[in-house]
Amino acid sequence: MRIPRLNHLGVVVDDLAASIEHFSEVLGLPLERIEEHGSELDIAFLPCGDTQVELISPRRPDGFTGGYLAEHGPGIQHVAFEVEDLEAALQELAERGVQPLGDAPRPGAGNTIIAFLDPAAFGNILVELCQPL
Amino acid sequence: MRIPRLNHLGVVVDDLAASIEHFSEVLGLPLERIEEHGSELDIAFLPCGDTQVELISPRRPDGFTGGYLAEHGPGIQHVAFEVEDLEAALQELAERGVQPLGDAPRPGAGNTIIAFLDPAAFGNILVELCQPL
Repeated sequence: MRIPRLNHLGVVVDDLAASIEHFSEVLGLPLERIEEHGSELDIAFLPCGDTQVELISPRRPDGFTGGYLAEHGPGIQHVAFEVEDLEAALQELAERGVQPLGDAPRPGAGNTIIAFLDPAAFGNILVELCQPL
Repeated sequence: MRIPRLNHLGVVVDDLAASIEHFSEVLGLPLERIEEHGSELDIAFLPCGDTQVELISPRRPDGFTGGYLAEHGPGIQHVAFEVEDLEAALQELAERGVQPLGDAPRPGAGNTIIAFLDPAAFGNILVELCQPL
């Protein structure tokens, strides 16, 4: 499995407009776009070098991200590494005893397929693999 | 203030050898080096695209990172954005009402000067600014 870049950093926020102001107006990262992801999330994309910050705002309290926000509060939720072939990467990981979390691959934001990996395999750190389509 | 890249992602770990195995052997990120930072931390640097993952292992339970680990457990602690002139960036931020946390600038890992910013200004997200020397 080759990881050409860190695709994005996933930051869960409770106030998308305020967070965009923090990262875009205060720090000066450009706001590329805001994407509605299904009925569950709004995501703001802020490119930075060859990666990007994703500000992820849940639209409802249930679901993966809404539940995360309720349990942990706002914060850096996950790191997403880019792969060229997600199915092959998951196969390699399975051979090393690492399983995905829930359905995988599944559609991600920004025209990708993604898989979250079991945090137990990474010392409680939530890792996503992400293949651009 | 111009941010040319995300300098690194700071991940606090409680078992450096196990974490290096997770990120380097399981995921395949290259381990560039391990640096002892003062008497407080060991840091493993794993480059990824134009950024890097820093696995940060406190050597003692007190101090900024040891305290973080005791309070939160292992996890993604901070995101570090690179700036060309840290003093000028801090001056700009002060004009926008954002203050650094503790002493700033101070020496960082990997021949840098750094400043952590007050998380209250970023919706509880810990942001570092980092100037390579």
